[in-house]
Amino acid sequence: MPTQRNGPRRSSCAIACTLDIVGDKWSLLVIRDLLHGKRTFGELLDSPEGIPTNMLADRLKRLEDAGLIVSAPYQERPVRYAYSLSDKGAAMGEVLLAIVRWGKKYVPGTRAMDPPRSSGAKRRTA
Amino acid sequence: MPTQRNGPRRSSCAIACTLDIVGDKWSLLVIRDLLHGKRTFGELLDSPEGIPTNMLADRLKRLEDAGLIVSAPYQERPVRYAYSLSDKGAAMGEVLLAIVRWGKKYVPGTRAMDPPRSSGAKRRTA
Repeated sequence: MPTQRNGPRRSSCAIACTLDIVGDKWSLLVIRDLLHGKRTFGELLDSPEGIPTNMLADRLKRLEDAGLIVSAPYQERPVRYAYSLSDKGAAMGEVLLAIVRWGKKYVPGTRAMDPPRSSGAKRRTA
Repeated sequence: MPTQRNGPRRSSCAIACTLDIVGDKWSLLVIRDLLHGKRTFGELLDSPEGIPTNMLADRLKRLEDAGLIVSAPYQERPVRYAYSLSDKGAAMGEVLLAIVRWGKKYVPGTRAMDPPRSSGAKRRTA
């Protein structure tokens, strides 16, 4: 599944190259949750879509390798990391907005997700 | 790979439900090419990314099932189909524009693809 992580580009098309990074069912949901202020692995795991643990770990690694997110340890023994979006990752918010608009209009019964209300997640974007 | 084609939604999130339709490395490239005026299976197969035949057939079926594209026979014996975007599919152009903007800004060396110049593909959108 994690094909082309370091492979050659499929083309010079900006769409193709972007899909090489986030073209799957989970990456943009992880970015959605980070935009909504989630920070830790546990918070990100607690999404309504139920992302599997190994999938989340893989996507975090890929997105960090691609420069969309950054991680920093917030605890030692055991070490735990907090994740946040780089400018490059936060800019994907414009893509998410376009997707939300399309989904709300064309997929009945869908809505924009509210940021989580739990105490652990601070809202970092509107 | 074609999971959840008819399965339950992962959530009511507009992003998740949209990714259930186009969240892969190929669907949005097929939509890109249809926006650029490609119509036939052969034209769609002739993309710089080299989509495999079985992948193209699967994506066309999925996108038609989801109401983003429509097909109509343009030839009999053997029957061949021409594909075009529904309003729902054409509206995905806004998502593609957001992706192009992100890609051009953050993935060095990428560009917006020009519509194909071949005679077979008529430009149907700007």
